[in-house]
Amino acid sequence: MGEFDLIRRYFTRAPTKTHPPQVELGIGDDCALLLPTPGMQWAVSSDMLVEGRHFFAGTDPARLGHKALAVNLSDLAACGARPVGFTLALALPKADEAWLAEFSQGLLALADTHACPLVGGDTTQGPLNLCITVWGEIPPGQALLRSGARPGDDLFVSGTLGDARLALEALQGRTSLPPTLLQATRQRLEQPTPRIALGLALRGVASAALDVSDGLLGDLGHILHASGVGACVDTSVTIKLIAASALPESAACHFNPDFLHQCTLAGGDDYELLFTAPAAARAAVAAAARASGTPVTRIGGIEAEPGIRLINAQGQPVVHRYASFDHFA
Amino acid sequence: MGEFDLIRRYFTRAPTKTHPPQVELGIGDDCALLLPTPGMQWAVSSDMLVEGRHFFAGTDPARLGHKALAVNLSDLAACGARPVGFTLALALPKADEAWLAEFSQGLLALADTHACPLVGGDTTQGPLNLCITVWGEIPPGQALLRSGARPGDDLFVSGTLGDARLALEALQGRTSLPPTLLQATRQRLEQPTPRIALGLALRGVASAALDVSDGLLGDLGHILHASGVGACVDTSVTIKLIAASALPESAACHFNPDFLHQCTLAGGDDYELLFTAPAAARAAVAAAARASGTPVTRIGGIEAEPGIRLINAQGQPVVHRYASFDHFA
Repeated sequence: MGEFDLIRRYFTRAPTKTHPPQVELGIGDDCALLLPTPGMQWAVSSDMLVEGRHFFAGTDPARLGHKALAVNLSDLAACGARPVGFTLALALPKADEAWLAEFSQGLLALADTHACPLVGGDTTQGPLNLCITVWGEIPPGQALLRSGARPGDDLFVSGTLGDARLALEALQGRTSLPPTLLQATRQRLEQPTPRIALGLALRGVASAALDVSDGLLGDLGHILHASGVGACVDTSVTIKLIAASALPESAACHFNPDFLHQCTLAGGDDYELLFTAPAAARAAVAAAARASGTPVTRIGGIEAEPGIRLINAQGQPVVHRYASFDHFA
Repeated sequence: MGEFDLIRRYFTRAPTKTHPPQVELGIGDDCALLLPTPGMQWAVSSDMLVEGRHFFAGTDPARLGHKALAVNLSDLAACGARPVGFTLALALPKADEAWLAEFSQGLLALADTHACPLVGGDTTQGPLNLCITVWGEIPPGQALLRSGARPGDDLFVSGTLGDARLALEALQGRTSLPPTLLQATRQRLEQPTPRIALGLALRGVASAALDVSDGLLGDLGHILHASGVGACVDTSVTIKLIAASALPESAACHFNPDFLHQCTLAGGDDYELLFTAPAAARAAVAAAARASGTPVTRIGGIEAEPGIRLINAQGQPVVHRYASFDHFA
């Protein structure tokens, strides 16, 4: 199978009703041609996944296809943008048809869910590497940025925290999990849910937002740096956001609490939205969570003093340090 | 040096006068924010370069930065689009500061030349891999597509053909070149010139176009397939488009003519524009070539009968077959 057969067979589909009107010409020419909706801004993000770094060799190809797009859609969600389309550049050791069939199925299923078609890209031979660039639309001035957090704002996170890291620890043999917990957390590691609906619902509500990819505290640091503020985080709340904390006492007790804090505060690969909103907007945040069907938890607040202060249930300072993921640290 | 320091130090620059008004927010948030010019279409393309596949280990980093963007800009040129911006996703074995300084210098110098700023991207650890996605603008209906060639059209190519392949053959020890010829052809291999100005000048003139990346005949095949036509190519003209053919007889004679035909007809990595235009537009093509300062040569014509017919100076059929590059063939 040659390069062009591969593209035709696994990545080219007839335009369907899931294709938004902004795509005039998709795969097959030198460029895709897009028609921006008049008056809308475009949000653009690009993420690269490398075998052995972002996923294990042998990862289920359908899940990998899902994840490669999900982590990009998560960036659109963090800006409050509605997905329009994406390109895929793919380096493959060889043209393995079974792998390609499953990978493209997982990738395009998520694309269909968000009406975000594959419009072009590149295929080449090389160590397995997936690079997706995604676009979305947003009304001018409504993008959720990292720079809008103000002292007195509440700090929220969507969904759960730390499950992906817990699965990674188990898959790498550093901890053991009951089978049902391994299955649930592995699902979170391998098929994260981009919070697109929540991002859209938070337009005009959240003061700042980003998606948690490298770990809660490190990513919170980006909001704080961009906004020139500090934050307080209640670790007695965040620790409850990992699925393991819901286990019966007898099963949960073999986890060191410090390990669960490490997973929730600095685990990485969560792809949840971390956002701030004025205290007066609590009802609006709750309404956005309901409207989007996404759990949202208030985990702390923004303060004028720079830095992150961790507290426990009694409001006492917690002194541990948790390092987020850095590809070159 | 951490991931974020790396981005700040080598890839983030203050917005300057070279930044077009379409970029509202560049590097540093979850997404870049772009403002499409009202009424314009967007052209998008993505290309991935893999070490050992598209370039040798140890390739000069500044030239590699240039080439990574140039091959993407070449796709915009082939559509007649004006560059607006690009993202870069970069997998690096390690954060080598000297390499990064040179790479970013070569990359951003070409970006400045085309007022096409880097607006975002991703950095990660992994086998060296460069993925660029580029956008340009074009008035609706004016994009140069592969599908517009008609019988009777002339067939043109810009610049030179086969030099990059000749350099590759020499660098891999399969042929030897005089030092000045090696230098010149190596420049074409490592620092191709995206034909942006010619692409813009060909709007409304060319009937079909693409950029030659895998070899003239293979890429011509894409135009013929998309347009439902055939073509005749005069190999006595194309062979003169390789720099080696301009050598004095004594130096050139050690090249087998068949080898030079292989380089010009199926060499790859040319990044020249291959385009068609009605015979009535010859003066307009010449004017576009002059206006853009780009040499253009008529190498054949479009015919109704499918397939590619190679002829010699006497108009006699040439029967050799030349295979273009295919990553998975």
